[in-house]
Amino acid sequence: MKKIKLGFVGGGKDSLIGILHKVASQMYDKYDLVSGVFSTDNKTNIDTAKTLGLDLSRVYESYEDMIKAELKLDVDERIKAVSILTPNFLHYPIAKKFLENGFNIICEKPLTITLKEALELKKIKDSNSLVFGVTHTYTGYPMVRQMSQMIEDKVIGNIQRVDSTYFQGWINDIIHDKDKRKSTWRLNPEISGISSCLADIGTHAFNMLELVCGMKVKKILADLNHLYEDNPLDIDVSVLITMENGAKGTIRSSQIATGIENNLNIAVHGSLGSLIWEQENPNYLYHYTNDKPLQVLKPGHPYNSKISLDGTKLPAGHPEGIFDAMGNIYKGIARQINGEEVKKREYPTIDEGVRGMEFIETAVRSNKEGNIWLELHT
Amino acid sequence: MKKIKLGFVGGGKDSLIGILHKVASQMYDKYDLVSGVFSTDNKTNIDTAKTLGLDLSRVYESYEDMIKAELKLDVDERIKAVSILTPNFLHYPIAKKFLENGFNIICEKPLTITLKEALELKKIKDSNSLVFGVTHTYTGYPMVRQMSQMIEDKVIGNIQRVDSTYFQGWINDIIHDKDKRKSTWRLNPEISGISSCLADIGTHAFNMLELVCGMKVKKILADLNHLYEDNPLDIDVSVLITMENGAKGTIRSSQIATGIENNLNIAVHGSLGSLIWEQENPNYLYHYTNDKPLQVLKPGHPYNSKISLDGTKLPAGHPEGIFDAMGNIYKGIARQINGEEVKKREYPTIDEGVRGMEFIETAVRSNKEGNIWLELHT
Amino acid sequence: MKKIKLGFVGGGKDSLIGILHKVASQMYDKYDLVSGVFSTDNKTNIDTAKTLGLDLSRVYESYEDMIKAELKLDVDERIKAVSILTPNFLHYPIAKKFLENGFNIICEKPLTITLKEALELKKIKDSNSLVFGVTHTYTGYPMVRQMSQMIEDKVIGNIQRVDSTYFQGWINDIIHDKDKRKSTWRLNPEISGISSCLADIGTHAFNMLELVCGMKVKKILADLNHLYEDNPLDIDVSVLITMENGAKGTIRSSQIATGIENNLNIAVHGSLGSLIWEQENPNYLYHYTNDKPLQVLKPGHPYNSKISLDGTKLPAGHPEGIFDAMGNIYKGIARQINGEEVKKREYPTIDEGVRGMEFIETAVRSNKEGNIWLELHT
Amino acid sequence: MKKIKLGFVGGGKDSLIGILHKVASQMYDKYDLVSGVFSTDNKTNIDTAKTLGLDLSRVYESYEDMIKAELKLDVDERIKAVSILTPNFLHYPIAKKFLENGFNIICEKPLTITLKEALELKKIKDSNSLVFGVTHTYTGYPMVRQMSQMIEDKVIGNIQRVDSTYFQGWINDIIHDKDKRKSTWRLNPEISGISSCLADIGTHAFNMLELVCGMKVKKILADLNHLYEDNPLDIDVSVLITMENGAKGTIRSSQIATGIENNLNIAVHGSLGSLIWEQENPNYLYHYTNDKPLQVLKPGHPYNSKISLDGTKLPAGHPEGIFDAMGNIYKGIARQINGEEVKKREYPTIDEGVRGMEFIETAVRSNKEGNIWLELHT
Repeated sequence: MKKIKLGFVGGGKDSLIGILHKVASQMYDKYDLVSGVFSTDNKTNIDTAKTLGLDLSRVYESYEDMIKAELKLDVDERIKAVSILTPNFLHYPIAKKFLENGFNIICEKPLTITLKEALELKKIKDSNSLVFGVTHTYTGYPMVRQMSQMIEDKVIGNIQRVDSTYFQGWINDIIHDKDKRKSTWRLNPEISGISSCLADIGTHAFNMLELVCGMKVKKILADLNHLYEDNPLDIDVSVLITMENGAKGTIRSSQIATGIENNLNIAVHGSLGSLIWEQENPNYLYHYTNDKPLQVLKPGHPYNSKISLDGTKLPAGHPEGIFDAMGNIYKGIARQINGEEVKKREYPTIDEGVRGMEFIETAVRSNKEGNIWLELHT
Repeated sequence: MKKIKLGFVGGGKDSLIGILHKVASQMYDKYDLVSGVFSTDNKTNIDTAKTLGLDLSRVYESYEDMIKAELKLDVDERIKAVSILTPNFLHYPIAKKFLENGFNIICEKPLTITLKEALELKKIKDSNSLVFGVTHTYTGYPMVRQMSQMIEDKVIGNIQRVDSTYFQGWINDIIHDKDKRKSTWRLNPEISGISSCLADIGTHAFNMLELVCGMKVKKILADLNHLYEDNPLDIDVSVLITMENGAKGTIRSSQIATGIENNLNIAVHGSLGSLIWEQENPNYLYHYTNDKPLQVLKPGHPYNSKISLDGTKLPAGHPEGIFDAMGNIYKGIARQINGEEVKKREYPTIDEGVRGMEFIETAVRSNKEGNIWLELHT
Repeated sequence: MKKIKLGFVGGGKDSLIGILHKVASQMYDKYDLVSGVFSTDNKTNIDTAKTLGLDLSRVYESYEDMIKAELKLDVDERIKAVSILTPNFLHYPIAKKFLENGFNIICEKPLTITLKEALELKKIKDSNSLVFGVTHTYTGYPMVRQMSQMIEDKVIGNIQRVDSTYFQGWINDIIHDKDKRKSTWRLNPEISGISSCLADIGTHAFNMLELVCGMKVKKILADLNHLYEDNPLDIDVSVLITMENGAKGTIRSSQIATGIENNLNIAVHGSLGSLIWEQENPNYLYHYTNDKPLQVLKPGHPYNSKISLDGTKLPAGHPEGIFDAMGNIYKGIARQINGEEVKKREYPTIDEGVRGMEFIETAVRSNKEGNIWLELHT
Repeated sequence: MKKIKLGFVGGGKDSLIGILHKVASQMYDKYDLVSGVFSTDNKTNIDTAKTLGLDLSRVYESYEDMIKAELKLDVDERIKAVSILTPNFLHYPIAKKFLENGFNIICEKPLTITLKEALELKKIKDSNSLVFGVTHTYTGYPMVRQMSQMIEDKVIGNIQRVDSTYFQGWINDIIHDKDKRKSTWRLNPEISGISSCLADIGTHAFNMLELVCGMKVKKILADLNHLYEDNPLDIDVSVLITMENGAKGTIRSSQIATGIENNLNIAVHGSLGSLIWEQENPNYLYHYTNDKPLQVLKPGHPYNSKISLDGTKLPAGHPEGIFDAMGNIYKGIARQINGEEVKKREYPTIDEGVRGMEFIETAVRSNKEGNIWLELHT
């Protein structure tokens, strides 16, 4: 199988997202990063390309140029997929243009700034046979896949309570300083859209929940906290939820959980057992039942499901991390692009990106209208 | 200092609550258990008394008899306090009668079945100089006291998000069986009152939150789950809360968190740091800040506050548990009865019992009226 | 069953060991503490007795007086057992005298200062029908009992490697200060005997190992560290061991593991699985196998063995601690005194005290003779 | 900076070590894998090259061919370094030949089969200006680097006790089956040399110890267990050690710790504090002191040292793993090859490989001669 020729938009040198996607794309020898617009700053753009060892003729000043130039190349030479790693508000126009010109898409989350944009992208995507992956990185961990598979296999029976949480503390340094909170782009609706906390991390908690449960959230009631009146965006959120099957629970996310690094965790309680997973210790899956000792599953053991083992490169006891999780997602997308059989959960699709946007918009609306229940429809 | 003569109502042989209170009362040599009605079953009543080595002339067939007989004794011989360990719906009449006859009270939670009853007890209590402790056992742990003191001392700055949780899985075996859920007294409103989950464990989560924050919950919005239509009481609850100072968060409690034993935990996030504590590992207090390594505090170290060290009998590394927590509460109540100086947090008072009842009633009402915000007033 | 009348020698007010034994003796209503010499300081002696609420006519100035006076009492009034809680070098003369006068013994560890003394006590004990318990407290934890039972039941197959460890850091503050290390009685051979670290904590690690394995250590090779030349006693020890069945491993103990509180832990690796337990988190037993997820056993669950459940008072999730462990040992000794059936592991006997002394002496000799292998014989 | 052209010997498709080195070499864009002999099986050799997308003219049938052919290329085209990923007994001849022909070396551990071979390689290496890295992967973790730096900075004072451990359970399935233990190459001295457990994992524990302590082990006394008489090699080892500064401790390694995955851990106790790290949870470093709460350090925080932060790509809370650790080692070697400044601990050198071989040989000899103390000299 020849490698898929890949381009980047964004992800310039020293950008964190850049190295994550680059390493992930190389991990399984399924992609060749050959082209890109790495930065709007041309020096950074060129420097990045040089560091990567790219042919500079394939490095462009804008994504429009990139599309034009790539289309002129032989199909075999031309990139087949593009990774979109720009600020959120640019996802939509860039993805749209690439989609319309026949390129497969790998896009960072949140998919867009509005649900409307997301639905438009989905419409275009559905009208052709392109692949569109949304990099909810955390879903690539082997124990998330294992959790999801065990729930599908009814190991914990029927789902009866769910709680998904994503807590960070980083905005704390900004939010209490009047000047800083005015000047950070993260809290500027023109750049960031209608939400800070929900859009940045709440959407991961929501996506993780629907993914591992294999079930949709039916309705939500959200309570958003801005902490200061002059801060236009949510930085702390609690959401009551009801699942399709009637199970209840919560989604909570916060950027003011001081000192908490990156605590995405999910607990699903079923009629026969509970499963709990935490992102900061991603190689442990806790399986509780009422009558047996707690079982702690770890990656790489033959007792895991195929889809979980597919995401582990080394034997048990050799901890893999977030780069490896993203590598798994890139592998799944590559399989899809290559026309191989792809199982559920190998990578998050545009449908999950659309759901995420609907969750954000609905939560903001529920809060604005007085903390009322609103249904999700997509 | 002479020991306080103590009586028990309830707590018969083989009752779990009995051994917990008995051991706790002996721990610091401050009480002498000399009298009681241990069971409505007379054989159990007498057997318990014999096991305890009590003078059988001080063992009674009813609490009314007990009061009458004890009042006939010399003040020095007479019990000075009574521990009420009966089913919940009996707390009120028994406590009332003992209060009215001049006995100090140690009462299990929830204080009563209705807020009205609780307020009545408080009124009587306030009109005399008696002591009334409510045994929210978990507040007696040294690291809960430490957490509370650190928050009072502003170690974590201003509180900005709070989450208190109490999950168990035991009702799972009952709730899914139509006959069992009909026949268990726990789900029978005539015996248990208007709530199962909130009354049994949610009230602990609520009490713990107000205790460690040193601040009241201002308003709540509750979502209760009965799981089956023919089940009249809540068994799974999510509550949105707003604190007096505007901080937001949640209280969650569940009896269908399958396989979870007794997971009461509380996280308080302040502007300078976060503190997290879990009942199942009560000797660890996690202190997070944005710029220093996580600190893990343990009991018995000189870096702890006085009120915390007062609750530890052995040096660090000798784990104490729930019996020791209850022993601390009994010690605090004894000090109060003995007229010694008593600090905040040494034991939960009737005020906390009243708050607990208001929380339960308000949450049930919020749910019934369509998940709306309701304020607490007591 | 009438309560066993109990006396204390040592354990005066504010002594840590005093409160531990007192609470333990009361826990199951099997003893009545009625008599004692609590301190050589008479004020402390009397104060302790008053705090405990004792009849002062049963409080004595010396253990010899105590024996004489108690013997004059009716058998029914007289104490049936005595707890010896004095400094180590007094265990032997006191225990001897009480034994010779027909009293059952509960003695702190290490049993004596020399193996010879220990063997003498054993000889006297064996010649009458008295009970002699040695309070290796940590063996009373429910999960230690569970570990031991599982090993006896061959759940982990044949033992093939064992490691027992007991690390503390408290002596650190003393050892590096020339004056302090000269003046502390802990490092004075005249009071403490031939060992500091081995005698104080190494003996626990050794006892725990033989107890849970249900097998004797056959030979040892010890390396002792005094850290400073002017310090006559070991404060840090590593011992190679070979078990009766040929399995190898280590016993390690240290008083200079700076910052470590009280980390006794034991790992037993068998042909089918491994079991690991740590004293600082005593309610967790880790069961590893090669083909299944790690299982974490906790107290109070029906999956535990009888002997383990017998040591738990409350349902799973209500953490019990070291007072409860000691309570279990007192319960076992009471059963033995009362002539009830007593299972292995209910309490440590004088035989274990003798083994402990042999371990200490043999380790010191192995080190002195150039780190050579020496067999244990008792 | 142009990428370093790299070749592989070994590491064929589906070999675990292959993917680890490949991903690590790509991580920081410092190498270009352009050449190799990936397997003695030519189909695997070619398949691997194709998967990697290599120019097949640079894929060879033997390492001798590889050297010859590469030498014919322009210096700019020619590989500058080779990664040796073959079975252990081949490290020596291959490394020797490459060294002699002017190639930099990246070699898996153990460096060779005998100390003599290791010293020979070192001699050759020292006689030219080539770089020779030995991939003790675990030393690349950011928290190992942090631990090492803190010890160098005297944060824990003077080292006074050390314990390094590496336990696995995988050989359990083989060792108890007479046929399997006869047939596995791991227990065949002709292929594996004089040791199984020491050579495979004990050497990591030894290396880790010297690395983090910044100090040499002075002498050792080893006890090796073969478990069965017909098994010629050690599979379980306990070693008493004395450090250069007189501190004592142990190195323990086992392949029969049933169910244990890959538990390399190291504890260093100093006069002011202790540091503990475990490979299976590599992102946690535990810092104990006698007077402050336990501190838990994690990667990516500014409180870490430069050398630690250099090994972290994402902010705190994004777990990196073993691939990232190896990536760090590759980065350090690249810097050395490129003539940049390289700090201690950036990668393990041939000196550490030599020490490892001496440790193995000395331990085997100590055991054979009756568990006696032997000094290390290199």
